[in-house]
Amino acid sequence: MPRVEPTPTEPPAGITDGRLARQIAFLVEIDKLKTVLRRSNLIDLSRRENDAEHSWHLAMLAVVLGEYAAAEVDQARVLRMLLVHDLVEIYAGDTFVYDVQALAEQEQRERAAADRLFPQLPADQAGQLRALWEEFEQRHTAEARFARSLDRVQPLLLNFYTGGSTWRPHGVRRADVLAHRDVIEQGSPALWGYVQAMLDDAVRRGYLLP
Amino acid sequence: MPRVEPTPTEPPAGITDGRLARQIAFLVEIDKLKTVLRRSNLIDLSRRENDAEHSWHLAMLAVVLGEYAAAEVDQARVLRMLLVHDLVEIYAGDTFVYDVQALAEQEQRERAAADRLFPQLPADQAGQLRALWEEFEQRHTAEARFARSLDRVQPLLLNFYTGGSTWRPHGVRRADVLAHRDVIEQGSPALWGYVQAMLDDAVRRGYLLP
Repeated sequence: MPRVEPTPTEPPAGITDGRLARQIAFLVEIDKLKTVLRRSNLIDLSRRENDAEHSWHLAMLAVVLGEYAAAEVDQARVLRMLLVHDLVEIYAGDTFVYDVQALAEQEQRERAAADRLFPQLPADQAGQLRALWEEFEQRHTAEARFARSLDRVQPLLLNFYTGGSTWRPHGVRRADVLAHRDVIEQGSPALWGYVQAMLDDAVRRGYLLP
Repeated sequence: MPRVEPTPTEPPAGITDGRLARQIAFLVEIDKLKTVLRRSNLIDLSRRENDAEHSWHLAMLAVVLGEYAAAEVDQARVLRMLLVHDLVEIYAGDTFVYDVQALAEQEQRERAAADRLFPQLPADQAGQLRALWEEFEQRHTAEARFARSLDRVQPLLLNFYTGGSTWRPHGVRRADVLAHRDVIEQGSPALWGYVQAMLDDAVRRGYLLP
């Protein structure tokens, strides 16, 4: 048995390109997004969803449902925004959308996380990725509005298609979900139509409190 | 306690837009990608990686490492290709890149899976997503070459930064990895340079057989 050295925390020996080394170190760091758990369950109910696979799922929603965006959008920017939007949760953790207490402190926690995360990249890219995250949060562009609406719709789909597996234990009411109407409808009126029918049916089926 | 109906397998009552219903059903079906396990471990070694979070990670590599593509690429197409490229594994399963036997039957299994998966979308989108998957497989465009090189590089990073956690139990040799040189180098000469240094260091550290 040869001696095996401990897991590396530095670039491989012989790497002299500091920019590339820094980019790779960032890509290794964000592997942690795969361990940040959300409240949603997978549709097969085998376990809770993590932020990385959630981000992939949102990007697929953007690819398949792009025609329902409220306005014409730059798809590449929507995709980059969705891929990046949850990265701050590596340090800030996931905030349950119906947890009022946690939501109040969320912005501060996430800003601190952004200050820590993005500067691990070379300065030009740190600025670009931070700008994408800010754009998503601020919801001032058509791309951000569409991306944010998908981020609200996806957990509703996971809930409906698991018989309300997160709604029921948390006693979520129809009105709690309706509070997100603007975020969904302003990004995609057509998806809001689908969601309305889904919520009506979810109440009727006993998944969501009236 | 109100009566709770079984988990739905149909669109919500009242949905009359057949196209949207079909698109959502597809997005629900591909949730299964989150349960297809790969051979790679997460960098914290807590568990194996799944295809959905792997696809997200590849898309982040494309965002951060885009400047190293061998030729100018359309980023949106690279991202769409990476998001979609493993979907067939929902039915075909993951094929370990060093399992010669399984690789021989891989193409046939994946074609059958594609025939089953993509037609669940409306015909126009079924054609578009299948074309992206074929483009990725055939590696004839600059976008596909770059995407394929990232798909080869990412598991090498997970291996190196976990002390060879997949290489060591499977007895993988440097020559086994070098067999993928063309796929990596043709998509990104710069990333091939990084990989070479990483493999040398991995052998020296006892992660990879010489």
